[in-house]
Amino acid sequence: MGRLNIKNINPHVVEAKYAVRGELAVKSEEYRAKIRKGDAKDLPFDQVISANIGNPQQLDQKPITFFRQVLSLLENPLLLEHEDVLINSLGYKSDVISRAKWLLSQVGSVGAYSASAGVPAIKESIAKFLEKRDGFAADPAHIYLSAGASSGVNTLLHTICAGPDTGILVPIPQYPLYTASLSVLDAKCVPYYLDESSNWGTSLEEIKESYEKAKSSGTDVRAIVIINPGNPTGASLSEGDIRSVIDFAVQENLVIMADEVYQTNVFLGAFHSFREILLKLQKENSDKYKGVELASLHSISKGMVGECGHRGGYFELIGFDPEVEAEIYKFVSITLCAPVIGQCLVELMVNPPQKGEPSFELYDKEYSKIFNGLKERAFALYEAFKDMEGVECGEPQGSMYLFPTIHVPAKAAEAAKKEGRTPDELYCMRLLEATGVCVVPGSGFGQREGSLHFRTTFLAPGTEWIGSIKKFHKEFMDEFR
Amino acid sequence: MGRLNIKNINPHVVEAKYAVRGELAVKSEEYRAKIRKGDAKDLPFDQVISANIGNPQQLDQKPITFFRQVLSLLENPLLLEHEDVLINSLGYKSDVISRAKWLLSQVGSVGAYSASAGVPAIKESIAKFLEKRDGFAADPAHIYLSAGASSGVNTLLHTICAGPDTGILVPIPQYPLYTASLSVLDAKCVPYYLDESSNWGTSLEEIKESYEKAKSSGTDVRAIVIINPGNPTGASLSEGDIRSVIDFAVQENLVIMADEVYQTNVFLGAFHSFREILLKLQKENSDKYKGVELASLHSISKGMVGECGHRGGYFELIGFDPEVEAEIYKFVSITLCAPVIGQCLVELMVNPPQKGEPSFELYDKEYSKIFNGLKERAFALYEAFKDMEGVECGEPQGSMYLFPTIHVPAKAAEAAKKEGRTPDELYCMRLLEATGVCVVPGSGFGQREGSLHFRTTFLAPGTEWIGSIKKFHKEFMDEFR
Repeated sequence: MGRLNIKNINPHVVEAKYAVRGELAVKSEEYRAKIRKGDAKDLPFDQVISANIGNPQQLDQKPITFFRQVLSLLENPLLLEHEDVLINSLGYKSDVISRAKWLLSQVGSVGAYSASAGVPAIKESIAKFLEKRDGFAADPAHIYLSAGASSGVNTLLHTICAGPDTGILVPIPQYPLYTASLSVLDAKCVPYYLDESSNWGTSLEEIKESYEKAKSSGTDVRAIVIINPGNPTGASLSEGDIRSVIDFAVQENLVIMADEVYQTNVFLGAFHSFREILLKLQKENSDKYKGVELASLHSISKGMVGECGHRGGYFELIGFDPEVEAEIYKFVSITLCAPVIGQCLVELMVNPPQKGEPSFELYDKEYSKIFNGLKERAFALYEAFKDMEGVECGEPQGSMYLFPTIHVPAKAAEAAKKEGRTPDELYCMRLLEATGVCVVPGSGFGQREGSLHFRTTFLAPGTEWIGSIKKFHKEFMDEFR
Repeated sequence: MGRLNIKNINPHVVEAKYAVRGELAVKSEEYRAKIRKGDAKDLPFDQVISANIGNPQQLDQKPITFFRQVLSLLENPLLLEHEDVLINSLGYKSDVISRAKWLLSQVGSVGAYSASAGVPAIKESIAKFLEKRDGFAADPAHIYLSAGASSGVNTLLHTICAGPDTGILVPIPQYPLYTASLSVLDAKCVPYYLDESSNWGTSLEEIKESYEKAKSSGTDVRAIVIINPGNPTGASLSEGDIRSVIDFAVQENLVIMADEVYQTNVFLGAFHSFREILLKLQKENSDKYKGVELASLHSISKGMVGECGHRGGYFELIGFDPEVEAEIYKFVSITLCAPVIGQCLVELMVNPPQKGEPSFELYDKEYSKIFNGLKERAFALYEAFKDMEGVECGEPQGSMYLFPTIHVPAKAAEAAKKEGRTPDELYCMRLLEATGVCVVPGSGFGQREGSLHFRTTFLAPGTEWIGSIKKFHKEFMDEFR
């Protein structure tokens, strides 16, 4: 066969697309390296703004002190021999020390593998959190720690996808992890469009139509993915939307995969977990809903935690066949375990300092500051988009993103075609080249034929970069008018 | 299709086997939980010894102080505002502080995603380490940080395996990550037996025979996996063995995957990396060797580092087609990045304190203590095996394991058959039930038809557990005689 080349390696890996870290991201990193080397005199900007990826601590978000103080003790337990120094000279509170001691008593060393599905005591903390959040008890036996939610998605899709005819309903626009993973697995993405005109909510008609079309062409649709709050849209689903998705899943025997990593990033409306609504429905009508299979995912990467570099997360299963769960357990055991320090951070996220505890005041202050900062930035960016010709953007709802529609002149579409790009790719590439602001074209997430968007995070501090987008946009529109 | 069940999920996941964390491991965890709850009066032992998995810090191995001090500062950079306290009250040396500052200047926050392939400065440190180890410069552009070596293996096999006809040569016995991953990928494991009679070295005849057999039955053999030093065998390959594997790879256009995670766990002979020998050969005869594709893997999980819970590692590529590397880059970018604190630990592993630096003395003392402790325990266990009837075991060579042959009476084989087990599975299950010592049957790694083994780590402290194995063995032999 000769050496490895693009024609003889895994074609499904070659087919996979992952725009969030694609050509634009690579080019932005080249600019950043140039600037670092002081070699950027020819560039029309002096910094790169990575608005392409939800990476809070790369930009301005500070880690929460309580979390990191505990982690420092887990990494160096010898510090616990100097409690007086920690408290009197370094400002550690007693609850930091007691939490670190308790976690160490449960994990042993953070340098040791944990049980495959995670540290038992951490799974118990997650179960308590779920009960408090949703009002229904959870069983730690069905909780699996993962390396971020991505690794959980990988596990679930690997298990569910039985072959090239398996289809998974995926919202469009979507976070491209789903389409990329389905490509690699050689399974079928069955896209259903979200309804931009109603704040990117789910439309049951869209889901049904897409499902029926896939089914009639021989696809065995096995699951529906919901990203709630939405990525890239930011939308929080209403309780009614969630109920109708569950009803549809019941009717068609679909597994529900609820990606809820943005559950605390909500500015508009309220977050309802699929778990909460499902368990309510089961209480109301056990016969109808008892068989529903729900996998809910969460992560330390987003929200006010923002610890994506630590790769922590979990998923919880409801209603899965025990033999299927045994296979999921085996699959996670092949990669041994999720990073243990990330597991500990999951514990801290789901069990933060409570009112009256020594670290609460600072925790609460830091948490609120991050939340309010994100909201302010989201609205500042939204106001800028409102001012831009040919740009439409819904009011910020949540997550870390805005996903405006752009209308570009016909000449821009022609220029894009010449370069072998879509018009939104051209727009984003030009934006990067002119301003150093890196965003992701809507085509990276999927969008309705004929519509154009881009996704930008609102994590970057200041308003200067927003001004530079406005200036670029005017010049771009003028150039191609 | 109805709900998910064992018959309709991914059959390749169902087929995968991973004995290291299989039935025995699960049962041992149940025992451990019972003991913790004080509910173990009916058990004939009062502790569980997890000798089934190379998990140093779960047992007795202490983390290296320098590493953990640096990590504590990376987790809580606010501590760096109190250098005097760190130095005068907590015993941190100046090189701990300067290393933490330098790492933070490179990664920003350990809570932020890094570049997909890892933090550039950490890749540079790895390149320097490779140059120092092998005598040949390395290019950071071809180094990829990973979540342990397991995740690197997953990336490489995903890319190389193009379909059900792709075959990968895998040593037998082997670490079951390889066979499990190939099952999941629906690719073919092409097994080649290691030569127990020559200290588990590679036999070129075996490799050729296995290769030809696979080829003639239509398998497209694309790569050869080498685990050096061996897992579960502990053997370090001689330079001659390595040369002949490279020659064979040249002749048949095979990618070489060198799993070298035990490179510092060597008691007998010397470790030669495939990289060193390949680059020597390329220097001697560039024409013949220039096209060789080599992927070498390393990890923080083993050796005197033993930080498996942190999930850190890397792989380096030599001779890969740039288009193929671009696909590997894309694949790793889908899972975003390796845990950043684990990446930092890779940096510390490849760039430890040097002679004359403040932390060197303690580092060196701790490192040597761990090394000598492992060696002593390996030999203590070896001596015990020598005394046991029907047990043959080679002298300990390295890694963290011994892999003795066991000969059991015919009646034991019959009893096993009745229970639906292999005789080595029966032996290991009985051992666990009688002593609390959990080991892995040889069938979990592969062994020649008719031969029986088990793998045990030699990480557990003390000699009591070794005594309990001896006692059990005698009773087992007597029972079935």
